Amino acid sequence: MIAKEGITSSAAARSSQLAPYRSTIIDHWVLGRIQAFVKSAPIRFVLWDGFELSPRDGPPVATLIFKERAALYGWMWDPELNFGETYMAGLVEVEGSLLELLEAIYQSFTRPHRPWWLWQGSNDTRAARENVHHHYDIGNDFYRLWLDDEMVYTCAYFPTPEASLEEAQIAKLDLVCRKLHLQPGERVIEAGCGWGSLALHMARRYGVSVRAFNISSEQIDYARDRAAREGLADRVEFVQDDYRYVEGQCDAFVSVGMLEHVGAADYPTLGRVIDRTLSMNGRGLLHFIGRDQPAPLSPWIRKRIFPGAYAPTLPEVFNRVLEPYSFSVLDVHNLRWHYAKTLEHWGQRFETASRQVLSMFDEQFVRAWRLYLIGSQASFSTGSLQLFQVVFARGNTAATPWTRVG
Amino acid sequence: MIAKEGITSSAAARSSQLAPYRSTIIDHWVLGRIQAFVKSAPIRFVLWDGFELSPRDGPPVATLIFKERAALYGWMWDPELNFGETYMAGLVEVEGSLLELLEAIYQSFTRPHRPWWLWQGSNDTRAARENVHHHYDIGNDFYRLWLDDEMVYTCAYFPTPEASLEEAQIAKLDLVCRKLHLQPGERVIEAGCGWGSLALHMARRYGVSVRAFNISSEQIDYARDRAAREGLADRVEFVQDDYRYVEGQCDAFVSVGMLEHVGAADYPTLGRVIDRTLSMNGRGLLHFIGRDQPAPLSPWIRKRIFPGAYAPTLPEVFNRVLEPYSFSVLDVHNLRWHYAKTLEHWGQRFETASRQVLSMFDEQFVRAWRLYLIGSQASFSTGSLQLFQVVFARGNTAATPWTRVG
Repeated sequence: MIAKEGITSSAAARSSQLAPYRSTIIDHWVLGRIQAFVKSAPIRFVLWDGFELSPRDGPPVATLIFKERAALYGWMWDPELNFGETYMAGLVEVEGSLLELLEAIYQSFTRPHRPWWLWQGSNDTRAARENVHHHYDIGNDFYRLWLDDEMVYTCAYFPTPEASLEEAQIAKLDLVCRKLHLQPGERVIEAGCGWGSLALHMARRYGVSVRAFNISSEQIDYARDRAAREGLADRVEFVQDDYRYVEGQCDAFVSVGMLEHVGAADYPTLGRVIDRTLSMNGRGLLHFIGRDQPAPLSPWIRKRIFPGAYAPTLPEVFNRVLEPYSFSVLDVHNLRWHYAKTLEHWGQRFETASRQVLSMFDEQFVRAWRLYLIGSQASFSTGSLQLFQVVFARGNTAATPWTRVG
Repeated sequence: MIAKEGITSSAAARSSQLAPYRSTIIDHWVLGRIQAFVKSAPIRFVLWDGFELSPRDGPPVATLIFKERAALYGWMWDPELNFGETYMAGLVEVEGSLLELLEAIYQSFTRPHRPWWLWQGSNDTRAARENVHHHYDIGNDFYRLWLDDEMVYTCAYFPTPEASLEEAQIAKLDLVCRKLHLQPGERVIEAGCGWGSLALHMARRYGVSVRAFNISSEQIDYARDRAAREGLADRVEFVQDDYRYVEGQCDAFVSVGMLEHVGAADYPTLGRVIDRTLSMNGRGLLHFIGRDQPAPLSPWIRKRIFPGAYAPTLPEVFNRVLEPYSFSVLDVHNLRWHYAKTLEHWGQRFETASRQVLSMFDEQFVRAWRLYLIGSQASFSTGSLQLFQVVFARGNTAATPWTRVG
């Protein structure tokens, strides 16, 4: 649920009319600073009284309208946070393509600045539960409006760009299974199982038994219902618990879209869990949103969408999860274009269902989620975010397959 | 060329007869210490007078015979160096499979110890030239005895385990080209080109122009001859120079089997060279011997075979070569089983040609190269060494392919 704090105002209600006061020379200077910050982005900036700055080169891809002075100064103060805050509050409006506007902004940062010091807080069990509850427990009915039939809320795999979202999510589930070389009768542990689609797919199509962990109560309830309905409850056990308390032994350890919520400070804990549970010839797969250089997620995303989340670089994961236990990296696959395409589908479905979403929540919620979905699409399409699938095994395993899955 | 220093003795000459003195209780204690060092390895140890220690569990995979006391104490003093020194000098003999003996030893180190402090010296231009001269300029005639027809001295890619070495080397050249998505007319820079097989393959089959760098004079001469004979000299330029001095622009940057010789201290230099030369939508491929945890190569390998060489972990390469320039990792492929198979082929061909090798060099040379080839095979088959192919591009490139090469 989107918290009701920060810049909220009633601007959304009066989004069609402009503020009655004139912009000053100081306002124009501030707007110039904002334009300079994204200087190569072809964007037209407009203030509440019609004052405008055109892009230095070429026609604009979109127009960005500040509807109140507070929004303008919010951007000056903390652009990364207040872009999202002012957009969701309706204090800023975009004419033209929001996607192209965001892509242009991301592309204008050609070399991301590396923070000198990156604070990576620890998510203890309670914080993890609260963070997950914040996002994943806002209602299965809401997610059903715009996810695929299988309710898969992670990057899909499009065999061709024209594949449907339904096809691409099934293809992703299958890609994961094939990369793990699952054999009938093997034991799988899944850390962070969402609504259970991967666990059920593995049991159904590959004949394995699965223990799948999740701390979201809404998701676990949904997954257990599905297992019972499909007659798979004897082979797929959904456990409502934290990944830290995973016990037992497995031949394959898989985690799709959970590492982002673990937080870098707890990667060694995850490594220890994998080492404790994985059999001698076991294989593992981690699927996660990552980066080319260390950087925190946008402060707006951390405030409104994913508290406690972090998108790591490959070395951060390798050094802290795999290397201490001498796990051997067999395969890394970057699927960032597939996530941009997945988010395009989600965004379109979300827009189609936006009136229903509005009736379930409010205008701010709709605008926040629109920005989150389209902003994420722009992050993946411009390479600001990556999507990595990493396959690994124990370094001295004898069971490494001869060729890999394409 | 193998240097004539360290333990050499004339033991090789009298390898069929045993030393005339008796082993003492101290010798037996030392042998017990050596056995304890590789305690889970099923090896029978025998001293010069017939005293023996059998493996604690099961039948031995091979027998290791110390023919002189000096060899025994050399192992006690520095086992990693003196295994090789005493073997090449003929002071130690192996009955049974040398490969299985070495695999058993590597497997007995289940958790490699991580050195607290790893000194990674810099290879300056002169050191690089001397290191390369040491290994690669010992004579094309020698390498022709046991390499494939194309003279490829790096890990092959076996479409099936039954493929011939010739087929597998061509398949590897092609795998590299396909991973780079080479288009006719594109410009390629190759750093460390061996005898030129990849550069010529790229120009011949993919219609690209190539500038290929190498500091080995024997290899460059050979490669230029081939280019001239094949009528490819206008499209493949072989430059005898260090990778540091690579100039120009390219659409693909490729380096197969050179990173091992760069040394970790100079990775930032390599990153700078790639950043300077690669076009905006360019792709890169690094193919190198690596490890799961940081560790130096065996001191014997560094002394006798590859001075200045180092096999890095993926994070060492990513952090120092790719991350500073925001290159994006698209694909990592671990081919360690393919290198074990390649070395099996090389070892068999080397044995077949061993009389010719003996006539060109001497018995110590033959024994040193046998140990190097079989020891390397055991390193890859047990997972002590890895072989990584890494494909990367600029983080904001628009030309990332939709699907990857299998």
